[in-house]
Amino acid sequence: MKIITVQAPVNIAVIKYWGKKDENLIIPLNDSISGTLSMDHLCATTSIAFSNEFDSNRMWLNGVEVKIDDNKRLVRCIENVRKLAESTVGWPSNHYIRICSRNNFPTAAGLASSAAGYACLCYALCKLFEINDPYIISSLARLGSGSACRSIYGGIVRWIAGYDHQTSIARQVITENEWPEIRIFVCVVSDHRKDTSSTSGMQLSCQTSSLIKYRAENVVPDHCDQIQKAINERNFDKFAEITMKDSNQFHAICQDTYPPIRYMNDTSWSIVNLIHFINHSFGHNVACYTFDAGPNACIYCLDNHAPILIKSIRRMYQKNDGTELEIKGITYQTDQIVIDQKINDYIDSRKQNAEDLKYIISTRLGSGPKILTNQFDSNCLLLDNGLPKN
Amino acid sequence: MKIITVQAPVNIAVIKYWGKKDENLIIPLNDSISGTLSMDHLCATTSIAFSNEFDSNRMWLNGVEVKIDDNKRLVRCIENVRKLAESTVGWPSNHYIRICSRNNFPTAAGLASSAAGYACLCYALCKLFEINDPYIISSLARLGSGSACRSIYGGIVRWIAGYDHQTSIARQVITENEWPEIRIFVCVVSDHRKDTSSTSGMQLSCQTSSLIKYRAENVVPDHCDQIQKAINERNFDKFAEITMKDSNQFHAICQDTYPPIRYMNDTSWSIVNLIHFINHSFGHNVACYTFDAGPNACIYCLDNHAPILIKSIRRMYQKNDGTELEIKGITYQTDQIVIDQKINDYIDSRKQNAEDLKYIISTRLGSGPKILTNQFDSNCLLLDNGLPKN
Repeated sequence: MKIITVQAPVNIAVIKYWGKKDENLIIPLNDSISGTLSMDHLCATTSIAFSNEFDSNRMWLNGVEVKIDDNKRLVRCIENVRKLAESTVGWPSNHYIRICSRNNFPTAAGLASSAAGYACLCYALCKLFEINDPYIISSLARLGSGSACRSIYGGIVRWIAGYDHQTSIARQVITENEWPEIRIFVCVVSDHRKDTSSTSGMQLSCQTSSLIKYRAENVVPDHCDQIQKAINERNFDKFAEITMKDSNQFHAICQDTYPPIRYMNDTSWSIVNLIHFINHSFGHNVACYTFDAGPNACIYCLDNHAPILIKSIRRMYQKNDGTELEIKGITYQTDQIVIDQKINDYIDSRKQNAEDLKYIISTRLGSGPKILTNQFDSNCLLLDNGLPKN
Repeated sequence: MKIITVQAPVNIAVIKYWGKKDENLIIPLNDSISGTLSMDHLCATTSIAFSNEFDSNRMWLNGVEVKIDDNKRLVRCIENVRKLAESTVGWPSNHYIRICSRNNFPTAAGLASSAAGYACLCYALCKLFEINDPYIISSLARLGSGSACRSIYGGIVRWIAGYDHQTSIARQVITENEWPEIRIFVCVVSDHRKDTSSTSGMQLSCQTSSLIKYRAENVVPDHCDQIQKAINERNFDKFAEITMKDSNQFHAICQDTYPPIRYMNDTSWSIVNLIHFINHSFGHNVACYTFDAGPNACIYCLDNHAPILIKSIRRMYQKNDGTELEIKGITYQTDQIVIDQKINDYIDSRKQNAEDLKYIISTRLGSGPKILTNQFDSNCLLLDNGLPKN
């Protein structure tokens, strides 16, 4: 029996992926760039066992069995690894796999779990069969969920759109240690609407938006060049500007879709406006927001401004009884932090309903996937004899 | 003494004006198309007196004196009429004008009052000095407020972008009697935010949006052709589709501006989604929404669907005590109207806070400006001896 347990990270794009030029191979319209979040606070964990003691392939996701054959993308990832394995270490026909996967963050948080999930699955499968080329792992993860290809690396990662399966892969831009000051806050917004899934949303945008092609061909390449330069120069002011512009343009494309798709609600916008007000007060960008296919705001900043940002958002969403918004992850000492009077006045004039923001996950850039246990290790974290440990 | 009193209408664009290629002459980036609303429910009224008994030009707007010289655009309208008058009927140097103007709708409604206001002022001034060419009146109104040039005609009107003062004028597409079934609901949304003015907003969009030029050059011409064809064929389904697409794209451009401009709030979006749901249930577009530089939804529909739309919106915004949302203007008998079960279920699952929608102004297409009294009439409605009445 071969066994392995892997942890893989979530990533948050600063240059957005929206729209495919090949639906089947998941080749995107344009390059995208993301930060990989620390697995201390958000990650997927997957255990895989491979043995002739099993009579079928089976999988469990967050405790619930998933029918592998019903999920075309899952089948494709496994089949691709099988083909590669057959020509090297082998995949005996009487052997089957058991997969057990969990996310350590609530599904209700509305965070894209599929990127971390598929990165974790593909990384574990590949390592189990001694496939170590990160480009191969990245392109396999892409077949599961486009943005999963970026979760194969730590730090800041660029997904090169490419033109076929081999060329559409992610590459690391910098490691997490090359810009260690970066901090990220995921502001989890309450919303009872069911969001349009990103798969169907981007398909509808490609079919109906008159602007998406222009964005992909003319604007994104420029945004990528500018942000890559800003990253290389550790120029946070510029990094923040491009991040906000690209997030805004992605949501503009959603609005230009027919019928229009809308992810940002009034709460999302209260954070947008607060960040612009704070940046304006400082005279340069000390923070930026970015929104994926949902209302949650992700804020990037540097460590020296983390306390004032946390304090400002908490103040804006303070309950009447003074209870503070919950911060999960990295905490900051904010008692001594003095918020500028103008910012205080702004917040006081725009106090929000405390219930509209659930909590903040406070984190930083982190590494790529990690093997927790492998075949030389008797302890397979999530599986026991090919069945989930409760 | 010459005196005149004129009434002029509000217009609601279905193809949006956003961005100027000449800031000074107010030459827009693209053509725009609007419906002129009936003056039974919304209008501006302006009285002008011209006499050697006055010692200066003075103006009052909604009861408050306005310093003419402080308003560059106002001065420009008056000076242009003066020049034209001097070469024809004359403008003796010892004569001065007194202007008194009122809107019959609350400023708090957030309706663009400047279009009706400048159309009224320029129409009255021109008629006072026997300038009757509608293209001249339209281009003068444009100098006051771009979209005012469209309020010079009734029915449906197209503002041809043009390239200079003479060529940037509005033309009537059809009269209000050529498509008499059209109904319009202005849903007045509660919002305490101060909206970005359209003048500064469109300036910022021109400076910062990467998509605005593409929209103006490549999308709007196509939208104009398609909607003009739909209007000529009285094809409401297509008219509605293009209206919604163009409104959405205008707001997409606002979101693509930096910092982003946002006019539509959660209440605006609740109406967008309701209209799409109703259209989907009917299998074709029975209504469309359009949003200007604020959160108010303007709904266009045909008379046969007016009752079901009114009833649906009222139901969505019904107070807990059963009190119905106020409808100002044309009322409909809705007791016998049965809302489809699917639509009812949709509304029940998305009940909104009744306070978020203030009231609906229910109206239809109407005529262009009208002279109420002229120099042969002793009754100048708003002025008495060159001063505002009461």
